[in-house]
Amino acid sequence: MSGQVRQDRVLIGEQSVRATVASIFEKMGVSRQHAETGADVLVSTDLRGVESHGVSIRVPAYVEQYRAGILNPTPEWRIVRELRSVATIDGDGGLGVTLAPTAMRIAMEKARDVGFGVVALYNAGHSGASGHNAMIAAKEDMVGMCATCSGTRVLPTFGAEPRLGTNPISVAAPARHEPPFLLDMATSAIAGGRIGVTAGETLTVSPGWVADADGVPVTDERNFASDANEGVDFQLLPLGGTSEGGSHKGYGLALMVETLTSLLSGGLPSMLDPSPMRKHFFAAYDVSAFTDLDAFKDAMDRTLLELRRTKPAPGLGRVVYPGLIEYEEEQRRRTSGIPLRQGVVQWFDEICKELEVPALSLL
Amino acid sequence: MSGQVRQDRVLIGEQSVRATVASIFEKMGVSRQHAETGADVLVSTDLRGVESHGVSIRVPAYVEQYRAGILNPTPEWRIVRELRSVATIDGDGGLGVTLAPTAMRIAMEKARDVGFGVVALYNAGHSGASGHNAMIAAKEDMVGMCATCSGTRVLPTFGAEPRLGTNPISVAAPARHEPPFLLDMATSAIAGGRIGVTAGETLTVSPGWVADADGVPVTDERNFASDANEGVDFQLLPLGGTSEGGSHKGYGLALMVETLTSLLSGGLPSMLDPSPMRKHFFAAYDVSAFTDLDAFKDAMDRTLLELRRTKPAPGLGRVVYPGLIEYEEEQRRRTSGIPLRQGVVQWFDEICKELEVPALSLL
Repeated sequence: MSGQVRQDRVLIGEQSVRATVASIFEKMGVSRQHAETGADVLVSTDLRGVESHGVSIRVPAYVEQYRAGILNPTPEWRIVRELRSVATIDGDGGLGVTLAPTAMRIAMEKARDVGFGVVALYNAGHSGASGHNAMIAAKEDMVGMCATCSGTRVLPTFGAEPRLGTNPISVAAPARHEPPFLLDMATSAIAGGRIGVTAGETLTVSPGWVADADGVPVTDERNFASDANEGVDFQLLPLGGTSEGGSHKGYGLALMVETLTSLLSGGLPSMLDPSPMRKHFFAAYDVSAFTDLDAFKDAMDRTLLELRRTKPAPGLGRVVYPGLIEYEEEQRRRTSGIPLRQGVVQWFDEICKELEVPALSLL
Repeated sequence: MSGQVRQDRVLIGEQSVRATVASIFEKMGVSRQHAETGADVLVSTDLRGVESHGVSIRVPAYVEQYRAGILNPTPEWRIVRELRSVATIDGDGGLGVTLAPTAMRIAMEKARDVGFGVVALYNAGHSGASGHNAMIAAKEDMVGMCATCSGTRVLPTFGAEPRLGTNPISVAAPARHEPPFLLDMATSAIAGGRIGVTAGETLTVSPGWVADADGVPVTDERNFASDANEGVDFQLLPLGGTSEGGSHKGYGLALMVETLTSLLSGGLPSMLDPSPMRKHFFAAYDVSAFTDLDAFKDAMDRTLLELRRTKPAPGLGRVVYPGLIEYEEEQRRRTSGIPLRQGVVQWFDEICKELEVPALSLL
């Protein structure tokens, strides 16, 4: 998108999306507080331009899961094990986006107490963009790190059978004048949302993104035609793509995420536990426990400036740092609104009528 | 190597290498305890088959640094800031491999106390294979995570000027019967040690490993001839290689490492601070603070078994998990010895004569 609104997009103001999404959550039986929290996670992510984890795809999916009884609208989450820097939380089947900010805040309280805090949350639904939760810590002068395990779509290196999720990790750290450092990445070569295809469409993949149906990495640019019913027939590869490209690293990072989420929270990874419930990891490092906070922020400013002032290679784009483009997008969208696809606006129109909640109002 | 000893290799027993290396350290003025610790880090790494971080390359480099006065043989390291789960340590110019295990043990004590412990160590030399230090925690039923920043050899995505080190990260976690999960990876597409060339040799690089002198990623297999004086003329790319391959992720991980090491310890990354001293990060999660330790180990066994029983794709190798091959290599080398190159054995012969310490004894 990057500031340009395409023909098939409709601009909706941030507040309108926020109000509508919160109202839909409430109609699912969710408390006002949880509804507002969930809406904030999704809308903040749309503001950053990360549509795959914003309202367009997620709200319809969550509504379906509430209606199917997969998600518990009134979770009584509880801490099942705790020490001064650690808590393990049973999410009682609640939606992750309504619980994750609370989990992060518990980690941050612990960090204020002993320097570092971490929460392992299990038995919870999708937690939104991992980076949003890491940013909660960065806004309060901490380094935030989050991770989530998510199904089995990714092949281990050399494997023919998928075993790991796209298992994202995120890191956020504050600067003084520069926009914060915010890394939010799938440990697969390409995020699941980037290769979704509508039935009948054709998808072009870059070398190292996917393997064919037998598990052999596709190392050329190739088109996959989508079957009307079953979608395209490929598997995701870990970051690095092929063994030569370092896919054992992406695979290892995905297993690191399973260790920090599924295993530390007392469960099993998706490859051994097909439950739709997920496990999440939220950690906060209190900068002032390590060093002088002002010096840290100045050093971060100098670092981030040095990176974005790096001379670009001939024919390539400008050098940015992780989080800069999303920050710029957020400034634009706060004023100009969030561009939603026509089909998404139509879905919202229908659900709002059905649930008798305020519709999205066009800017 | 993988169990086969090539013609130009000489097998040396583990104990002999250990004794010789410790004696060399002592002759540099290092205490007996630090000398044994440093030798253990290096020899353990050679046993795992990771020659780039073993005695062959590192001992000559360390001797040079001690002799040049870059390294302090008798560092009076001290904790400069501390909370229950956090300590920042000034390494007083000591060699990392002699200090790192102590730093990790301080993190582990904190983890036993409050569930998690982390140490940021600055003003210290090279800390050896990051994974060795993470394994110290795994051996005592914790999840270990380490990271180190290391110079400026890696381009940011789209950049023409190197800004980041190969900045390795490592994770180790215990299982019950299975060998532990041990990930130890450079965040660059290829580790620095993998692309070293001797003057006059030719190096063949795979797509996405390096960029040419202008910073443009090399996306075919290409040969680089080494100039007798200046070496080969390329820059390292982040994991992912090209922008399409996800190099912003490897770049982001490298910046995450700078944040956890250089910045949290109160310093600047190498791109802004040319000091040969490095910054390191050691963290330990006490598994039993999160969940039942026995259940965790059983779950880890099931996970690792499931991974290595994954059907391989046609024509590709067996599916392993990170750490398995290194574990197998260790079992072999404990019995059959460590294969050192002839030139390395010769270097040791000479230095041992010069320093009047016991020479390596061939098996």
